[in-house]
Amino acid sequence: MTTATMTEKPPVMPRNGVDTPTLFATLDAVKGQPEIAKFQFRASNRWVAGTHSRSTLHGFFGAGQEMEHKQAHSYDADHPQVLVGADNAPTPVEFLLHALASCLTAGMINIAAARGVDLTSVESTVEGDIDLLGILGLSDEVRNGYQGIRVTFRVDGDAPAETLRDLVERSRQRSAVYDVITNGVPVDIRVEAA
Amino acid sequence: MTTATMTEKPPVMPRNGVDTPTLFATLDAVKGQPEIAKFQFRASNRWVAGTHSRSTLHGFFGAGQEMEHKQAHSYDADHPQVLVGADNAPTPVEFLLHALASCLTAGMINIAAARGVDLTSVESTVEGDIDLLGILGLSDEVRNGYQGIRVTFRVDGDAPAETLRDLVERSRQRSAVYDVITNGVPVDIRVEAA
Repeated sequence: MTTATMTEKPPVMPRNGVDTPTLFATLDAVKGQPEIAKFQFRASNRWVAGTHSRSTLHGFFGAGQEMEHKQAHSYDADHPQVLVGADNAPTPVEFLLHALASCLTAGMINIAAARGVDLTSVESTVEGDIDLLGILGLSDEVRNGYQGIRVTFRVDGDAPAETLRDLVERSRQRSAVYDVITNGVPVDIRVEAA
Repeated sequence: MTTATMTEKPPVMPRNGVDTPTLFATLDAVKGQPEIAKFQFRASNRWVAGTHSRSTLHGFFGAGQEMEHKQAHSYDADHPQVLVGADNAPTPVEFLLHALASCLTAGMINIAAARGVDLTSVESTVEGDIDLLGILGLSDEVRNGYQGIRVTFRVDGDAPAETLRDLVERSRQRSAVYDVITNGVPVDIRVEAA
């Protein structure tokens, strides 16, 4: 044994693939300098043809500086043929469901890691009901968006069922996407027309 | 000239890549049978490791029957390294921005086609401001989700600027994603814990 290892604390091992020591260090850093928690995320979208468009997600602002993902990612969206699209990609509203499931999942994994819970499997399904009389302009009484969304999680891990259920509940309480989708957020739209 | 072409009406040409005749026929079909407008969209998500998960979008219900996209599409989401993720993919909240841009764009293309406006270019950028003190659990006064979202469209086409701006406004009024993101929707979460 070297002096170095003797004076070090036992290492806090990453859990669930989460680098828990860095997670705690990050929390401490933000506590000491709360302004670094202000982030801005961005998408740029370009129309392709018909109802088909493509968004690119790459740069964002965070921790006081301009940042980029390791690589740019592009995602298409389209309408299905039954809605007179070419079905080149899922619909915009389906991406809301992906956002919701992935946000709740990432949150519960972090919370589990912080609490020392080892998870073996997390799966979820999300269903959103929508009556297209709204977006088709055929009814002013039917809303345009989903009328309700249901998420079902199946969670397996080294903890009692009650603890596993609580992880999902804690994640819900701190989920950015859940907050936006349930509470709404102001959206400002500007148009530069040539 | 054959008799067939002489007796046919002049064809209504697709515009902006939108099959306008089928779009109008679809609207007529829904007017006559409004229950076919009830749709359900779905996502299934599976945790990969850390904050990395993957959603699959394939089947949906619509027009009175189970349907599928031409192919299944899978999308990853992750947290960036500055947020202690592995940055395998964009964050869940960035997919909200893709959903919003693509929904507003698809809507305005359809509306333009229905009104006989030829568009040459539609681009948009979306920015969402978020203060992570909320999701990090470091403040109960800061919301978890975006505090505000700004969309900027650049539209070019064969119509006056005022008409082009009005296309975006009409799309906003009938956008499913804009409705969800600005007004919120109830989300029910259930957990099956092993």
